[in-house]
Amino acid sequence: MSRETISWSAALCIFSYFLHGVDMRNINAAYDKLRESPASQCGYLSCHPTKPNMLNVHLIAHTHDDVGWLKTVDQYYYGSETNIQKAGVQYIIDSVVDALIKDPEKRFIYVESAFFFKWWKEQTSSVQESVKKLVSEGRLEFIGGAWSMNDEATTHYQSIIDQFSWGLRRLNDTFGECGRPRIGWQIDPFGHSREMASIFAQMGFDGMFFGRLDYQDKDERLMTKNAEMIWHGSANLGKSSDLFTGALYNNYQAPDGFCFDILCSDDPIIDGKHSPDNNVKERVDAFFDFVTKMAESYRTPNLLITMGEDFHYQNAGMWYTNMDKLIKYANARQVNGSNINLIYSTPSCYLKSLHESGITWPTKSDDFFPYASDPHAYWTGYFTSRPTIKRFERDGNHFLQVCKQLSALAPKKSVEFEPHLTFMRETLGIMQHHDAITGTEKQKVALDYAKRLSVGIRACAANTRSVLNQLSVQSETSASTSETRSDYIFDFKICPLLNITSCPVSESNERFALTLYNPLAHFTDEYVRVPVAHHNYKVIDNKGVTMEIQLLPIPSAVMNMKNRTSNAQYELVFFATNLPPLGYRTYYIEKLNSSEGFLRPSFSPKKTSSLTVIGNEYIKLGFDTNGFLSEVTADGLTRIVSQEFLYYEGAKGNNAEFLNRSSGAYIFRPNKNKIHFVANQVDIEVYRGEIVQEVHQKFNDWISQVVRVYRSKSYAEFEWLIGPIPIDDDVGKEVITRFNSGIESAGIFYTDSNGREMIKRQRNRRDTWNVKLNEEVSGNYYPVTTKITLEDTTARMAILTDRAQGGSSLQDGALELMVHRRLLHDDAFGVGEALNETEHGKGLIARGKHLFFFGQSGTRKGISLKATERIVQIESLLPTWKFFSNMKSYNAEEWRTSFRNIFNGISVVLPKSVHLLTLEPWHLNQLLVRFEHIMEKGEDVHYSRSVQINVKDVLSTFKIDDMRETTLDGNAWLNETQRLQFVPDSEEEGIQLICNILKISKDCALIKCGKTVSGCKIF
Amino acid sequence: MSRETISWSAALCIFSYFLHGVDMRNINAAYDKLRESPASQCGYLSCHPTKPNMLNVHLIAHTHDDVGWLKTVDQYYYGSETNIQKAGVQYIIDSVVDALIKDPEKRFIYVESAFFFKWWKEQTSSVQESVKKLVSEGRLEFIGGAWSMNDEATTHYQSIIDQFSWGLRRLNDTFGECGRPRIGWQIDPFGHSREMASIFAQMGFDGMFFGRLDYQDKDERLMTKNAEMIWHGSANLGKSSDLFTGALYNNYQAPDGFCFDILCSDDPIIDGKHSPDNNVKERVDAFFDFVTKMAESYRTPNLLITMGEDFHYQNAGMWYTNMDKLIKYANARQVNGSNINLIYSTPSCYLKSLHESGITWPTKSDDFFPYASDPHAYWTGYFTSRPTIKRFERDGNHFLQVCKQLSALAPKKSVEFEPHLTFMRETLGIMQHHDAITGTEKQKVALDYAKRLSVGIRACAANTRSVLNQLSVQSETSASTSETRSDYIFDFKICPLLNITSCPVSESNERFALTLYNPLAHFTDEYVRVPVAHHNYKVIDNKGVTMEIQLLPIPSAVMNMKNRTSNAQYELVFFATNLPPLGYRTYYIEKLNSSEGFLRPSFSPKKTSSLTVIGNEYIKLGFDTNGFLSEVTADGLTRIVSQEFLYYEGAKGNNAEFLNRSSGAYIFRPNKNKIHFVANQVDIEVYRGEIVQEVHQKFNDWISQVVRVYRSKSYAEFEWLIGPIPIDDDVGKEVITRFNSGIESAGIFYTDSNGREMIKRQRNRRDTWNVKLNEEVSGNYYPVTTKITLEDTTARMAILTDRAQGGSSLQDGALELMVHRRLLHDDAFGVGEALNETEHGKGLIARGKHLFFFGQSGTRKGISLKATERIVQIESLLPTWKFFSNMKSYNAEEWRTSFRNIFNGISVVLPKSVHLLTLEPWHLNQLLVRFEHIMEKGEDVHYSRSVQINVKDVLSTFKIDDMRETTLDGNAWLNETQRLQFVPDSEEEGIQLICNILKISKDCALIKCGKTVSGCKIF
Repeated sequence: MSRETISWSAALCIFSYFLHGVDMRNINAAYDKLRESPASQCGYLSCHPTKPNMLNVHLIAHTHDDVGWLKTVDQYYYGSETNIQKAGVQYIIDSVVDALIKDPEKRFIYVESAFFFKWWKEQTSSVQESVKKLVSEGRLEFIGGAWSMNDEATTHYQSIIDQFSWGLRRLNDTFGECGRPRIGWQIDPFGHSREMASIFAQMGFDGMFFGRLDYQDKDERLMTKNAEMIWHGSANLGKSSDLFTGALYNNYQAPDGFCFDILCSDDPIIDGKHSPDNNVKERVDAFFDFVTKMAESYRTPNLLITMGEDFHYQNAGMWYTNMDKLIKYANARQVNGSNINLIYSTPSCYLKSLHESGITWPTKSDDFFPYASDPHAYWTGYFTSRPTIKRFERDGNHFLQVCKQLSALAPKKSVEFEPHLTFMRETLGIMQHHDAITGTEKQKVALDYAKRLSVGIRACAANTRSVLNQLSVQSETSASTSETRSDYIFDFKICPLLNITSCPVSESNERFALTLYNPLAHFTDEYVRVPVAHHNYKVIDNKGVTMEIQLLPIPSAVMNMKNRTSNAQYELVFFATNLPPLGYRTYYIEKLNSSEGFLRPSFSPKKTSSLTVIGNEYIKLGFDTNGFLSEVTADGLTRIVSQEFLYYEGAKGNNAEFLNRSSGAYIFRPNKNKIHFVANQVDIEVYRGEIVQEVHQKFNDWISQVVRVYRSKSYAEFEWLIGPIPIDDDVGKEVITRFNSGIESAGIFYTDSNGREMIKRQRNRRDTWNVKLNEEVSGNYYPVTTKITLEDTTARMAILTDRAQGGSSLQDGALELMVHRRLLHDDAFGVGEALNETEHGKGLIARGKHLFFFGQSGTRKGISLKATERIVQIESLLPTWKFFSNMKSYNAEEWRTSFRNIFNGISVVLPKSVHLLTLEPWHLNQLLVRFEHIMEKGEDVHYSRSVQINVKDVLSTFKIDDMRETTLDGNAWLNETQRLQFVPDSEEEGIQLICNILKISKDCALIKCGKTVSGCKIF
Repeated sequence: MSRETISWSAALCIFSYFLHGVDMRNINAAYDKLRESPASQCGYLSCHPTKPNMLNVHLIAHTHDDVGWLKTVDQYYYGSETNIQKAGVQYIIDSVVDALIKDPEKRFIYVESAFFFKWWKEQTSSVQESVKKLVSEGRLEFIGGAWSMNDEATTHYQSIIDQFSWGLRRLNDTFGECGRPRIGWQIDPFGHSREMASIFAQMGFDGMFFGRLDYQDKDERLMTKNAEMIWHGSANLGKSSDLFTGALYNNYQAPDGFCFDILCSDDPIIDGKHSPDNNVKERVDAFFDFVTKMAESYRTPNLLITMGEDFHYQNAGMWYTNMDKLIKYANARQVNGSNINLIYSTPSCYLKSLHESGITWPTKSDDFFPYASDPHAYWTGYFTSRPTIKRFERDGNHFLQVCKQLSALAPKKSVEFEPHLTFMRETLGIMQHHDAITGTEKQKVALDYAKRLSVGIRACAANTRSVLNQLSVQSETSASTSETRSDYIFDFKICPLLNITSCPVSESNERFALTLYNPLAHFTDEYVRVPVAHHNYKVIDNKGVTMEIQLLPIPSAVMNMKNRTSNAQYELVFFATNLPPLGYRTYYIEKLNSSEGFLRPSFSPKKTSSLTVIGNEYIKLGFDTNGFLSEVTADGLTRIVSQEFLYYEGAKGNNAEFLNRSSGAYIFRPNKNKIHFVANQVDIEVYRGEIVQEVHQKFNDWISQVVRVYRSKSYAEFEWLIGPIPIDDDVGKEVITRFNSGIESAGIFYTDSNGREMIKRQRNRRDTWNVKLNEEVSGNYYPVTTKITLEDTTARMAILTDRAQGGSSLQDGALELMVHRRLLHDDAFGVGEALNETEHGKGLIARGKHLFFFGQSGTRKGISLKATERIVQIESLLPTWKFFSNMKSYNAEEWRTSFRNIFNGISVVLPKSVHLLTLEPWHLNQLLVRFEHIMEKGEDVHYSRSVQINVKDVLSTFKIDDMRETTLDGNAWLNETQRLQFVPDSEEEGIQLICNILKISKDCALIKCGKTVSGCKIF
């Protein structure tokens, strides 16, 4: 039994809980798994000893198995399509396991749980037992361990945490304590976020290694022995988010000439005594040259040498045979005075050696974005590449959370819930992969991801339909009835194409119900938009109250989309209020005969001779006579603010020379940084109603936008629609939206880190080295997962995105976001295709929303703009999920009286600053729950303050017998988790340091969320 | 104790014996190895059961590991130079062994002992034990088992037998009975010799499978179900040389689409239940289509499917994983009525199934040459490719036999003898490989072979030097003296460059001894040629008798060779007679002051106005006024016979189309069959002496020849020197020598089969099908390992070669032999290089001899021409080996009186028709001995007759305690060896058949050499 009352002593802390329900049948087994502490020696206990006074070279046998890239996940797993890439993960694991079984000296690390568990379930129990032995002896060690090796720029923290939770749970379920990774292993992602470091720290990881950082940064760090450091993962969480982090010397490849994989061409070690090709001396000399040089860049007499690469170890024996020889002949030189010692090792054993060295380390507080691999290769294109996949992933996460919650809330669990949910969890895990959500995969692979996701949504929709039927029906009819019925009363259909304003149920039925499920733990209000085929509808709520509605024409750009098949002509808008937390409210929508109360949308002619203004009491937007946004009034300020679309030309290089890179899926490289306006004149239509006011802008044939302000909202929505980007001029284009303001931002702007903390950016500058930018545009791009802002002492402008995008502020007061890109050349980092998304011969159309905030900067009495942004950020990430049900069989009155049309899943509503990040069924009769404080320090006088909640009270819907706090991933008891502590070069953080080095008492864990400690002994 | 007296009841039989010497220390162990009969089940006992009434598909997991081709042996073994070919044999065996250990259901066959034992000696004893278990259970089965998979066109039977003996011995020593292959596996050689079949039969093999046969032949055989047959391996040996032989359906590859190796691109079997890529049905359907079609071509409901290819199974798991699935899902269909049954099998298990079928089989009596893979790809170029490697290999065999004999004859064995001998045995084993002696390897690989061979010769030369010192010195000095001396009295140097008339010892010393070691088991006489720098020498024999000598100028073409560095100006010729069998006679050679008896070579001016004649009482050659051979008088006949050099232009194709092949290392494809004379006029010099008469012909700048007749020889020598073949006209050239006679050969000619039996050839015809020749020249080429002949009712012409060459008779009475080729294009069968042998920018020069016989055809009273040819064939294959010793320290008299200068290793001289094929040290105190009757039936009234010898009498030099007859390879007791018997379609050979099916009694083994049986019960 642990603390039921959570006190946030400061902002932005996540508490993770493991809850056990009334049925305790399986609870002991589950506990056992978490607690399992095998007699066998794994992890730090299994390390081969290093030798004192020697340079200890840790050979890390590893494979890097992309969960999709040039081939699909299945193609990689089974090893098909070898003409694209010779890569078959099933063979890798088979082969590695064989090799490990043969020789207890050998070590291997495995990273990607998505592949591992695909393999695992195909094995005989005898193979499984062998593997368990290998794991329990630390011979096979899991590193990273998430479902995939996630990208760090375009991923949302919720999804990162989820996919780690799932991967680590599977490892925990299968291997117990020895299956738990201690080390993050982000060797391939294209830059590294501070939030990722923070997450690793909060999951209890001891350290993290990565491969890719800016080439200038790397040079400098290696020169100054700063490639290994203590990374302060959070500006809010303090020491508890510190993570020992190491930049690898050689990316993740083997030293030149020592790649012994079947995919490599380096010569093996040839030790035949009489062989004319005997190369032992020459190869050992070369290896020693390498490690001797490398040792100049690291602080301790330990070196981590990665021996492996993408999809290596399909024939593990090949690697090990040669490493055996390398070790044998290298160490044999010790008798002649060599002080170089090679051992099979793992990243954890290497970290252990660093830890034991007792030295101090440099620190870092910013992040590793953007990543540049050479002066003209800034990996900032992928921040935006494949914008629709990036958005679809967010939809997927949205529905996954809804599905988790409803599955948890279900009065009766079906046996199918768990497999459906698991499929969806795993699909989202795959989507986080650094060649999935990033858009850096081949087109066919992108389609496979999309297909998987849509299958996953369909699977989980079976859960939500079941639960919603149970909840709707149970209160009105007897339990026995609902138990025995084989089909459902209501459809509770999801409309996955609402993003193009299409929904068969609402378009083709005269009567349907709309159930709005609110996944947040507080009441929300939401402006709902429903595609309809007619212009006269009646909407009544669960109490029978007729709702005020507004009808708006669907913009012609949407209507004209080639691949859209829909009867909808209008969007029906109404304001749904008081939507219950973790609950739903259902509305009955009925088409009226056109004679009844005909409604015309309010429409203004395109051409106006003066400023066109839309807005409300909170915010007003003015459009000039050319149709562009020109002025914003909000929060007591009126400022000139413009918005426009522009595009860069994608550079066409030959990729052969260092300086001649093409812009591509990874790389953003505008041709001579030229930028083009897409229009001098914008056609506009203005629709003003009681609920919403909209300006429909048409910039050109392929760019349009709806700018809208809802009656009660203090921000504006910019719903853009881009594409098909024309390429008939043989020029690839990278389209941006740019908001210009007079804010004197002095080069400073802020972007979020995986949707959580904001990080300060300064144009043409890096925090830790004097950057020399050869690409002034793309070198100033940063990942915007959800938010980009700038401000001066009086005013502030912020934009929330609905997906990851690249963004920057290239002039003071201006923010730009890249919304879409279509390119004609490959950028030569392996994908081998131009990023030219095309369907049926037409370029891809992308549609999305920017939420635009403008107002006073700084804190003040009322809710700050920042706090509003935070709350809207959560509400737009997880709005209500819309379920549509045909109502042919029930008229409004029958419906209203026969079914439960409102449901609240939570007992005590959380304050707005606290977010129920997670509520999901875990093992049988167990729940995994996370509460998150969403405000950063100082963002708001009120909302950034401490909060206290009682977990059991909040979740009293559930009968909780026991609860216990876990690490962030939910797979280890927090109070039993200890992390290796590293000492920074400067000792300014002494108190926290000491506290953390010592065994932390239960209460002391509080310290992890801040410096104000109550009840914690400071030593 | 077995028969000591061998009776050849007919010609051409080889008796192999295993002899044990006086020291019996190790004999029991060796016996045990031969006798070992493990309780474990291997071979036919280990087969997975087939299913009755089903089509049983035998999946044969195999790898084909060329012992050198595009890479050298070591490069292939270690897997270096992967840019040339991804192939590392060490990984293959590692990986296969791992896979087999994991699953007792699986089978694998391994073929090349050269690689296997290279791997074996690197293994730990625990791995070795595991492998022994696999072998003893028949899970790993050796097939073929020779040191390499020898070529069948260019190899000599002596070397084939040797390399099988060695491979099988190593297997026997290591694995006992279960290591003994039962099946020949010649899947890649480019055509198949009848002698090879005969050798397999005599080694006790049950059958043989091969891959390559003429495409027309194959089509017909498949269509008529004659792809599997009983091959009569010998026209002389009868039933005992019959071999069950099968032509594989798909060469040795897996069915299209079912190649699961890492080197392949076929899709794996994807059986993920929910995988979008699941292809189980489709793949099984495709496999069934394949086997159903294939079954139409074979007689029994058993099919042999090769699952493997060149250097496959580096990741054995990849193959087995997919074969497991294929078997699983294919056989699962049996419950639904499928009658196809897949099993892991081996060629022996397949053969067992064929045997058990009880059906009868077609027979074949000719061979499978030449091989054509398409209408314009006749693989007849390699009969000649790399003529100097082909000759060097013969030199190597020659010295190997000398080294074996001397090592066996050594009074005291040094511990180094055996390793040196083994290195040489294994080198010769490697040289027999079908991409070594064939000349179809890359240039660098050819150089590696040559280097190995020269290292091997150097190693064995240490043996011969030691033994010759012992023999020379022991009789004159005390044993203790010779035992303790650390260096040798005499050099006994070998001169490996005698082929270009260069020998440092004879050229630079004023006094030297020449020891002529005679490896034959009868006395020989030999005309000896020694390169010398001066023109006045004295030669005395071991008795002090001064020999008659003759000096001849070294031809200018030799003197002008760019890469030859020699002081020699002359060749000193004398006639060495009565050279003892398996013994030596030494001559003392001393330079005389030029004042003493000056000798001028007899020289005729080039131009003559009439016929120039050289010759003796047996044969006379006349040369016309243009310098060409024009007339031969021999054996009572005088005929017009001419000889000329010509060349074909090598076709330059694009290799892309079927009909547009380039001539290359494999393929001989003359451009439009055009042939060019190289000269209209030949410059000649005539040298006539008492010992030899020579005509030195110069055809052009790059072709010259010496034609000579020795005083007492009935044949002429044509010593040709070709090269550098000019290519400045960008035309590749293939040079032939052609002998034209008036013999009315009616399209018939004869070529030898691996230097043993002759096979009748008929121009534009094949014995077993109506051939359609699209290449009239190259399609009529046959391999000439040692001999080509033609005849009519009165006259006969025969040419013996000193290496393998391609040859034909394209007009009646004419014989041509291709002597050298230089080509500018690759023929697209993998080698990837043009056969353009070049050193220091110059094309390769080749030199060699043709021995020319002319006389009456048919048998007669005196020795027949054929018998003479046979004897000369052996004498020219194994002439005396020349050892040169500096004589600075001994004058002739000291030398003559202080040392033993004559030695005879044999007690009873063998008749000329019997050849001591082998005398070699085997295990400690054991000898392997082979006696061969070298005449075919009817070749000579006298010499073809039966012979009887007493083995112990012949070898009474050795103290023989025990002897036993073995199979041809020397690794199994003949009387314990049983072969599977197959019944031919026609029953004409009834008696032999019955006799062979029954257990053969000791005496009955005689039957194997013929039909006249004494003491053998005929049932």
